[in-house]
Amino acid sequence: MTAEIISGTEIRKEILAEIKQEVEEMKEKVGKVPGLVTILVGKSPASVSYVTLKVKTALSVGFNEIQDDQPEDISEADLLALIDKYNNDENIHGILVQLPLPKHIDDKKVLNAINPDKDVDAFHPVNVGRLMIGGDEVRFLPCTPAGIQEMIVRSGTETSGAEVVVVGRSNIVGKPIAMMMAQKGVGANSTVTIVHTRTKDLAAHCKRADILIVAAGVPDLVKPEWIKPGATVIDVGVNRVGMNEATGKAILKGDVDYDRAKEIAGKITPVPGGVGPMTIAMLMKNTLTSAKKTLGLE
Amino acid sequence: MTAEIISGTEIRKEILAEIKQEVEEMKEKVGKVPGLVTILVGKSPASVSYVTLKVKTALSVGFNEIQDDQPEDISEADLLALIDKYNNDENIHGILVQLPLPKHIDDKKVLNAINPDKDVDAFHPVNVGRLMIGGDEVRFLPCTPAGIQEMIVRSGTETSGAEVVVVGRSNIVGKPIAMMMAQKGVGANSTVTIVHTRTKDLAAHCKRADILIVAAGVPDLVKPEWIKPGATVIDVGVNRVGMNEATGKAILKGDVDYDRAKEIAGKITPVPGGVGPMTIAMLMKNTLTSAKKTLGLE
Repeated sequence: MTAEIISGTEIRKEILAEIKQEVEEMKEKVGKVPGLVTILVGKSPASVSYVTLKVKTALSVGFNEIQDDQPEDISEADLLALIDKYNNDENIHGILVQLPLPKHIDDKKVLNAINPDKDVDAFHPVNVGRLMIGGDEVRFLPCTPAGIQEMIVRSGTETSGAEVVVVGRSNIVGKPIAMMMAQKGVGANSTVTIVHTRTKDLAAHCKRADILIVAAGVPDLVKPEWIKPGATVIDVGVNRVGMNEATGKAILKGDVDYDRAKEIAGKITPVPGGVGPMTIAMLMKNTLTSAKKTLGLE
Repeated sequence: MTAEIISGTEIRKEILAEIKQEVEEMKEKVGKVPGLVTILVGKSPASVSYVTLKVKTALSVGFNEIQDDQPEDISEADLLALIDKYNNDENIHGILVQLPLPKHIDDKKVLNAINPDKDVDAFHPVNVGRLMIGGDEVRFLPCTPAGIQEMIVRSGTETSGAEVVVVGRSNIVGKPIAMMMAQKGVGANSTVTIVHTRTKDLAAHCKRADILIVAAGVPDLVKPEWIKPGATVIDVGVNRVGMNEATGKAILKGDVDYDRAKEIAGKITPVPGGVGPMTIAMLMKNTLTSAKKTLGLE
């Protein structure tokens, strides 16, 4: 039996179409659309490429998108003032600051200056705290874990009472998704185990997972024989394992031995085309949520 | 083999003695002591009794303790103004608002008005977020989970790589202690599973726990045969199961069948006299930490 493939590329399309629909309805109803600002300091090619994709996606769903490019030598004070300006701009519902920032600027200070209610990346301690408190407290969920949860739900995997094993304890993925899956509510209510580098018997934990979420950043860490037959496997790893000489593009591999794992798992995400594409869709969804809350449409 | 008893009453004594010592050194060094204010609205007997104990303990370790009693009919605005006053008082390092508040006051609004850096209860979303982010971000840990971790460490239980199973997912105990034990660092680095009412096989999870933390609020939920021989068992439950007619006092029971469990466990906390007494000690420790940070003594 070959596993059902959970395609992030396809689910992203669905989500963006849903968002676009909601934006049109919002425009009709209250004459406004979600506003997102993307602040880019400097011109690092990787950052430019990420920001371009965010801008393009935001425009494609009908957002009011402001790309605010700042010079490499902007002072920390000026950057903080810029954030303050957008914090106070009622037409802006989401503020993104592209990382990394130049060395003379304190990343954390800048990110913590964003109004938590416009922090659509959801990295501000207030939003991290709200995630853990759960329930009505939550305003935004961080984009990668939110994308993982969305894939699990849309694939029709039962989460209530399911054994979820999360491999990795990063602030970006492991810890938040573990906490989200353990909460009460739809798409959650799971029994959750967090395993990591200090875990003694990684294999034994993976083997009992109904839902296995792997975010370790180690190619092929999870062996096919560790997968419970029929399990849902979410592979968050994106590891560059070489270069395709013909195309000049990196060869990407996940943390799971995909080719063999898909013969055992019930559902599985590929790499690339799995969790990766979801993140930007959830960023747009958070911006829509922010606009809806601000405009009293929820 | 009978388990070693981890006595919260004894460990509390040790911690309070350590705090007292540090306060004396602080007074000598910088001529200041930690300042704690306890705000009590109304005169509910239970609240008065809790506040009295906090005040007495704070005074016993040499803190500058202000008991600020307010009438039952204080307005929310006046209470918020009072908190603001203490937020701006440089001699106050910890602010406690005794709950519950009267119905005309929004609990959450009041608690969230406390400066997170003086929130020694650590319930503010910023402090919850810092707990999850971990590392240097953490300023205060919530008192009951902090007490549990302290007991595990002081009992000499190895946590690194240990299988920790947390029964219960409350915001006060289950979720924070699970996250704390999974973090990097001393007294943590454990493989952590959170189980709860939706978990399918509670017994199987408990049976593999090297450290079993039970915070379900269900008397005798954990059966002795679920305990791994030699495990460390932390029982957070405090259940009133009857009344002693002679003394008129409530009979308290934990979530673990203590009398039989202590024949199997390696170390175990009793109820009462286990986790309960630790909470107030950690509250004092948080206040000391706050003062030290504010005074630049760390």
